[in-house]
Amino acid sequence: MVNETQHTCSASSSSKSDGGSSSGSESSKDSSRCSTPVLDAERHERLREKMRRRQDSGDRWFSLEFFPPRTANAAVNLISRFDRMGAGGPLFIDVTWHPAGDPGSDKETSSMIIANTAVNYCGLETILHMTCCNQTKDDITGHLQKAKRLGLKNIMALRGDPAGEEWEEEVDGFNYAVDLVKHIRNEFDDYFDICVAGYPKGHPEAESYESDLKHLKEKVLAGADFIITQLFFRSETFIKFMKDCQAIGITCPIIPGIFPIQGYHSLRQLVKLSKLEVPQEIKDVIEPIKDNDAAIRNYGVELAVSMCRELLDSGMVHGLHFYTLNREVATTEVLKRLGLWKEDPRRPLPWAVSAHPKRRVEDVRPIFWASRPKSYIYRTQEWDDFPNGRWGNSSSPAFGELKDYYLFYLKSKSPREELLKMWGEELTCEESVFEVFTCYISGEPNKNGHKVTCMPWNDDPLATETNLLKEQLEKVNRRGILTINSQPNINGKPSTDPIVGWGPSGGYVFQKAYLEFFTSNEIVTALLKVLKKYESRVNYHIVNVKGQNITNAPDLQPNAVTWGIFPGREIIQPTVVDPVSFLSWKDEAFALWIEQWAKLYEEESPSRMIIQYIHDNYYLVNLVDNDFPLENCLWQVVDDTFELLNSPTQQ
Amino acid sequence: MVNETQHTCSASSSSKSDGGSSSGSESSKDSSRCSTPVLDAERHERLREKMRRRQDSGDRWFSLEFFPPRTANAAVNLISRFDRMGAGGPLFIDVTWHPAGDPGSDKETSSMIIANTAVNYCGLETILHMTCCNQTKDDITGHLQKAKRLGLKNIMALRGDPAGEEWEEEVDGFNYAVDLVKHIRNEFDDYFDICVAGYPKGHPEAESYESDLKHLKEKVLAGADFIITQLFFRSETFIKFMKDCQAIGITCPIIPGIFPIQGYHSLRQLVKLSKLEVPQEIKDVIEPIKDNDAAIRNYGVELAVSMCRELLDSGMVHGLHFYTLNREVATTEVLKRLGLWKEDPRRPLPWAVSAHPKRRVEDVRPIFWASRPKSYIYRTQEWDDFPNGRWGNSSSPAFGELKDYYLFYLKSKSPREELLKMWGEELTCEESVFEVFTCYISGEPNKNGHKVTCMPWNDDPLATETNLLKEQLEKVNRRGILTINSQPNINGKPSTDPIVGWGPSGGYVFQKAYLEFFTSNEIVTALLKVLKKYESRVNYHIVNVKGQNITNAPDLQPNAVTWGIFPGREIIQPTVVDPVSFLSWKDEAFALWIEQWAKLYEEESPSRMIIQYIHDNYYLVNLVDNDFPLENCLWQVVDDTFELLNSPTQQ
Repeated sequence: MVNETQHTCSASSSSKSDGGSSSGSESSKDSSRCSTPVLDAERHERLREKMRRRQDSGDRWFSLEFFPPRTANAAVNLISRFDRMGAGGPLFIDVTWHPAGDPGSDKETSSMIIANTAVNYCGLETILHMTCCNQTKDDITGHLQKAKRLGLKNIMALRGDPAGEEWEEEVDGFNYAVDLVKHIRNEFDDYFDICVAGYPKGHPEAESYESDLKHLKEKVLAGADFIITQLFFRSETFIKFMKDCQAIGITCPIIPGIFPIQGYHSLRQLVKLSKLEVPQEIKDVIEPIKDNDAAIRNYGVELAVSMCRELLDSGMVHGLHFYTLNREVATTEVLKRLGLWKEDPRRPLPWAVSAHPKRRVEDVRPIFWASRPKSYIYRTQEWDDFPNGRWGNSSSPAFGELKDYYLFYLKSKSPREELLKMWGEELTCEESVFEVFTCYISGEPNKNGHKVTCMPWNDDPLATETNLLKEQLEKVNRRGILTINSQPNINGKPSTDPIVGWGPSGGYVFQKAYLEFFTSNEIVTALLKVLKKYESRVNYHIVNVKGQNITNAPDLQPNAVTWGIFPGREIIQPTVVDPVSFLSWKDEAFALWIEQWAKLYEEESPSRMIIQYIHDNYYLVNLVDNDFPLENCLWQVVDDTFELLNSPTQQ
Repeated sequence: MVNETQHTCSASSSSKSDGGSSSGSESSKDSSRCSTPVLDAERHERLREKMRRRQDSGDRWFSLEFFPPRTANAAVNLISRFDRMGAGGPLFIDVTWHPAGDPGSDKETSSMIIANTAVNYCGLETILHMTCCNQTKDDITGHLQKAKRLGLKNIMALRGDPAGEEWEEEVDGFNYAVDLVKHIRNEFDDYFDICVAGYPKGHPEAESYESDLKHLKEKVLAGADFIITQLFFRSETFIKFMKDCQAIGITCPIIPGIFPIQGYHSLRQLVKLSKLEVPQEIKDVIEPIKDNDAAIRNYGVELAVSMCRELLDSGMVHGLHFYTLNREVATTEVLKRLGLWKEDPRRPLPWAVSAHPKRRVEDVRPIFWASRPKSYIYRTQEWDDFPNGRWGNSSSPAFGELKDYYLFYLKSKSPREELLKMWGEELTCEESVFEVFTCYISGEPNKNGHKVTCMPWNDDPLATETNLLKEQLEKVNRRGILTINSQPNINGKPSTDPIVGWGPSGGYVFQKAYLEFFTSNEIVTALLKVLKKYESRVNYHIVNVKGQNITNAPDLQPNAVTWGIFPGREIIQPTVVDPVSFLSWKDEAFALWIEQWAKLYEEESPSRMIIQYIHDNYYLVNLVDNDFPLENCLWQVVDDTFELLNSPTQQ
């Protein structure tokens, strides 16, 4: 019989490794308590631990490399790509350092900000590349401090390309990647996981393959945690390299860099930069089809798949690193054919988690931002502490200012012309607004034949879960109950349910029915009368843009609307209707009318005035049906309201 | 439309009134958060607020006065009485100050300790009387500081009887109750609620009725929050007094003191002490029946009921204060006949809450102490903080030492002889111990004809809820699965369910099935094999007295086994199986074999050695069936275990 009491709480043990870090995100009090049930072990692990665990369990994985985009619009697209490719389950992504692009700045397109977005807003484990040559110690320390502040935990330490043609060693400068590795370990102790580059054919500037291997070992001895290799064209190249590394005592993980050939020109450019030679057998295939992009890509996918299969079959490789060139199709195809692309419908929590270390403990959010998670993360990024276990009295955490419409990762993906087609070139009355909402719900084209695929409050089409309510929602939107958020009631479905499930298997998830909408003063007046009948069953908050607020929430307590019961764990309640944060959300929800919709039209135009009128006069209403085991009564509440409005005594 | 956003969280607003108190129980961080959903508003209110709320809602109430007992045994009995009379729902109880009995000491029988027990262990709102005459300022301050430290929040400020025959004012001393009121307000600001005495017939030593009223007003002006009156015999007496008080501007609550006549001698004694005159019409009835206790008590009840009815009908009285003389029958009878005795089967939480202010936020406990709540409170009394919201990583809170068997409020109510009759004058083998457990469960007398109404781990007969499992429990105890704690699984019963319900109405309560027992090494070995089959469904902890511990709890996380979902609130999970506190409980559970059972027998006697053997060799096991919506599988686990033991391959 084994004494198994030595288990430690993984939250507190991993926070320990942050050591005397000055991040300030974890007070000693927090680190001595594990108040968040560990739902998703990976969320609390460092990258090197994740890698080790996957290796131990024989679970194969992949990672994806991106470079920073050139324009803000390209950045918006890249972020959508992060979300889409993140769905396939990469162990991490990495973002290259682009010295010419002011990589450490706050620009939307800088390496730093792109990596920040990947970690914080897309919830992806991220490695930020960093080069050291031609930079001062202070510059580098400054970049590292900033990366840490933003929640980045992994650095790929590189030398980078010298600025001049002829490069000379600087005395006491950063001449090699190993200098950067040492600097990171000196200045930041064990805070960062460090990755270094390996060259299966030897670095082009190295004296010899052997001396390059020695340099690699120096980097590992200086503190690197794992190695990602330069691209190569034959699996034997990597396997030989791997064996040679092991022979000289390099024991850390070595991850092969895979480059699926995606086009003739990109291949040529990459080969030029990396000073690699393309094997003749590949050249022989490519040259004849060099103007047929599709053919080359197909060949590239084929080639990559077979090389990856050989690598995996060798038993020496557990993970594959893909040079995506910021493109989606070829890499995704390779991954799918290898069976590594794992779109896991199971979510650790009902909302997308952020990978920032201080958000590790975050396990409850207000339901209001369900369709705008990036805005919620942005507006709470300054919080030192996250409501955990219980939302608590949310009057203390102050939400960030509402100046964020401009932030590129909150921008609508659709351009103005497209929005006008969806939401109407010209609005004639409030009903034409109802029509837009109705089309968004129904998926039917509007009267000009355009589908409405997003709304100011929902940048994506209707969630699968909301589809469960589609028919009812369509009916009420048509009548001026302009819904922006809703969920059905769920009474104990398995946590593995493909639509409403989340959390570990073997559990049960629950929801209270929720409905949130804008509506007119007239409807609110009737609704309030109707709600009296439902007083003990339905909680409501009704607020206008001025903050006039009507509620029956007891003592301004939050109402848990999503929760889960799991084997061997405490109850998880990840979503609440919180009266205090509702007032912050209200500002955002009303502002979106103007910022995203009204401003599409000329000032003083009738269309703009209609939206302005709604903004000024409508109410934002949320309703919760507390009786989750019974049939959702919120539709009855709405029906009763319309019945009251239509009854003769009301006219 | 009203702006209702001004609601404040009652927890934080009431903690504010503790002001700059040095109790240390509430850090600034705690008071800025309301992390406990307010289940029971009263738990967060001061006595004067409760009184006001009852008055506003027209809800009538009563309170009960007790005096400190003379002996430790009498104290044990009084505490049982607190529990029983507490069930009727008094707004508060009060404990008189007994200057001759060292009232501020740590003796089991002191006023201070009795009041402490009422607050902390019986969860009763309690007023401690305190007299000031013939005492130094330092003595008094010391008593008040101690009262505050123990969690007492209310003081009845009295002058007390002068020690000598002829009393003289001391210069700068405490001559009147008003001096004590002023002192409390000076030294403790608003921390205490202060009660003072009113004399419907005027104080016997007062110059006049009018001057006595003036003194009363002075006490109120000095800071008293409400008044309890001396006893009286006619409702007109009180009503006149009340009107006279109002006429001179006394606006605080005035509570009539009711004395149900319970016997000839006690009446005579009380009248002598209080210098009151018994009205002739009462004397006329009593004198002829003075030797018939029952007749006098019946008359007393009758008289009290009709006087109380008159008081309540006057519309001037909302609460009645009863001088119980530490007796139960007459007062309970009066209260029941008045309809004020309200045994409310609804519990705010599944366990008995403590009324100590720092335990206001306590909303989760380990299930292990379910039958020993006073022990749990005692062992956690030094905690600064209570796990709220989540039990969290309970390795931080250190449980108090196991030296508490001697504490009078943890003593068994039954004397040694009775325990021997129940648990066996002589034990012959382990099976005779099984028999004791089985009889406790079945309620059948043991072979000597004695019912087993308590066990070392359960001082009371089987809980109603446990009765649901009675048949199964009886079967397994007979075979050596010696159960000490269990609960059935519950999948969403209304919170008002008379057996398993708790919390506010309109909610739903849930439980995972739980079973805790001692059993032999042989059975544990088979059980562990069987549990492999149930690995994903059943969590277990198996430990022996030496601390050898086998568990499948993930990351030593607590497992929520009782939770409730309520309208407009966060999820409440008041009971957990917590791996860390289980090891503290294990010490207590094993020690009870020796302290409460083995020590009944002579050293070296066979009976004692049998218990000692069990203590040294048995395991303490707990099992949780996580699949609460399905039929409890724990009985199947036990059946499978016995089947395995009986299978030929095992023999």
